Amino acid sequence: MKLFDTFRGRATFAFFVLLFLCLRAQAQTDPLPSWNDGPAKQAIIELVKTTTDRASRKFVPPEARIATFDQDGTTWVEHPIYTQVVFGEGSALVKAKPDLKNVEPFKTVLSGDREAMAKLSTKDLLKILAAMLTGMPVEEFNTEVTKWIAAAKHPRWDRPYTELTYEPMLEAMRYLRENGYKTYIVTGGGQDFVRVYAGRVYDIPPEQVVGTAGGTKYSYDKSGKPFWTKEPKLLLNDNGAGKPEGIHMMIGRRPAIAFGNSTGDRQMLEYTKAGDGARLALLVLHDDAVREYAYGPAQGFPPTKIGTFTQALYDEAKKDGWTIISMKNDWKRIFAFE
Amino acid sequence: MKLFDTFRGRATFAFFVLLFLCLRAQAQTDPLPSWNDGPAKQAIIELVKTTTDRASRKFVPPEARIATFDQDGTTWVEHPIYTQVVFGEGSALVKAKPDLKNVEPFKTVLSGDREAMAKLSTKDLLKILAAMLTGMPVEEFNTEVTKWIAAAKHPRWDRPYTELTYEPMLEAMRYLRENGYKTYIVTGGGQDFVRVYAGRVYDIPPEQVVGTAGGTKYSYDKSGKPFWTKEPKLLLNDNGAGKPEGIHMMIGRRPAIAFGNSTGDRQMLEYTKAGDGARLALLVLHDDAVREYAYGPAQGFPPTKIGTFTQALYDEAKKDGWTIISMKNDWKRIFAFE
Repeated sequence: MKLFDTFRGRATFAFFVLLFLCLRAQAQTDPLPSWNDGPAKQAIIELVKTTTDRASRKFVPPEARIATFDQDGTTWVEHPIYTQVVFGEGSALVKAKPDLKNVEPFKTVLSGDREAMAKLSTKDLLKILAAMLTGMPVEEFNTEVTKWIAAAKHPRWDRPYTELTYEPMLEAMRYLRENGYKTYIVTGGGQDFVRVYAGRVYDIPPEQVVGTAGGTKYSYDKSGKPFWTKEPKLLLNDNGAGKPEGIHMMIGRRPAIAFGNSTGDRQMLEYTKAGDGARLALLVLHDDAVREYAYGPAQGFPPTKIGTFTQALYDEAKKDGWTIISMKNDWKRIFAFE
Repeated sequence: MKLFDTFRGRATFAFFVLLFLCLRAQAQTDPLPSWNDGPAKQAIIELVKTTTDRASRKFVPPEARIATFDQDGTTWVEHPIYTQVVFGEGSALVKAKPDLKNVEPFKTVLSGDREAMAKLSTKDLLKILAAMLTGMPVEEFNTEVTKWIAAAKHPRWDRPYTELTYEPMLEAMRYLRENGYKTYIVTGGGQDFVRVYAGRVYDIPPEQVVGTAGGTKYSYDKSGKPFWTKEPKLLLNDNGAGKPEGIHMMIGRRPAIAFGNSTGDRQMLEYTKAGDGARLALLVLHDDAVREYAYGPAQGFPPTKIGTFTQALYDEAKKDGWTIISMKNDWKRIFAFE
């Protein structure tokens, strides 16, 4: 109480109140604190400002504000191998099918040889997914993924895969949502797989996860209760041209902003940029071997089957005005645990 | 001002204020004014109360509150023939394919004979849809539907089809949304077709319309800009067992409440009821020949290819505790224009 008894006391108090307000105001003016100031951060903020300002010619009504994010290599680590393939290796799913163990690509997956696994093609990966899933009741699959994702750890960081999400991307998602955007994961990975943890990890509900999706078969158990098993039928191969096809089918609107990192995202980024009004396509470049990985021939890194970032993709990005996100230069920190 | 000068004046004023408050309270306690009091209305209100009351054992968190509505025969008139088939007949789409005009089922559709058209099977209808759509740029399709739906009229009421939505169902949608539910259309009709008007008519955005969906083909025009054409590939036949398959794929959660009216909705209703907690399956019975139509053998009406409501479906509904909505008895009024 004594503080307010003197003029000096009151002045000191007022000073701290002002300081607090200034700091808060500054925090409010930086919605992307893990991003260094640069063209990528600026482009995202500019897109949000332009599309949410009612006075702007490029204003987008809230219900049409769609943002899409690729997952592997864009919102979390994809090296040395896609997390879902490790799931295929580590879980009992493939091992439960002994007749497959001498047949490629299953042989490679079961060998545990990660270098060999990293060389598998997308076609092989799809084959593995299909084999893993066929005949499995949907609820059992969800239970398996839930158990596995809680326990499995990335060999380099010895942390759960779900902690290896990129903090700047989580910030971008939050910032977009705070500005009325609906955020979607649009992944080449399995839709059912990603949905299991997308709520907890990305704050994204299952209906906003678009991914490679198989069919389901409807049956009745002995008591007459219906249940579902996964079928080898491929409903949507959500990769390459499959990404905008999936977006058209599951969302029905063109994104205003899309994030990707590989040739599998090319058509999604093209589709986004080809719309009227303000559109932003962003491409993550893995150029930070110290804090994460450096790969992709566009920057002179060795080619890889995972997250292919070719010279042609880089050239298209430059030509069509996509924004390159350099992990090394644009991201102040990469992981929340740093 | 004189009113407030006497005690009597103030008492009169107070009386009207109280009257107004009472009327408003009553309006608030009746969220479904177009429904007669009865088991159907009561079941909907009970479901909403149980799932939104935090103290209830059957409380459902807001993000998991899913409600699904079939369209044809459930939210709007399907007789004498599905609106989308009339679109196929009336639009230039089929007529633009002269080679089809002597081949069934196109011959029937082009004849304009509505009785013959009403007898077409679902398989025939799917054939027509596929032929209508193949090779058409997606944006052109949207333009065609927009034009057609604004101009076309139902022969009996001489009103646009979009005015032939059932007012009690629109009320149920609003009531569910006000209580945190996400409302979805889950239709055997074309997903792209329904999405064109779902926002205006049902206040439902495109991403919450699940329907029969074809593939799209990704091409580039001369300037290098990507565009889409519709493909004959059937991605999802959203009918029968295809409905819960579509719900699993596009929503990823089981509905707490589902509305249907025919054998095409059977598996969706079963799937809904088979979940844990509070679940409600409702089946619209077309038993009002005066205000709408009466059809379906379950009530001794002649069988029809449109909106099949068989005796077996009726028996399953009774056995499994689905709620029957009698248009005649449960709906105070059917259309907004009444």
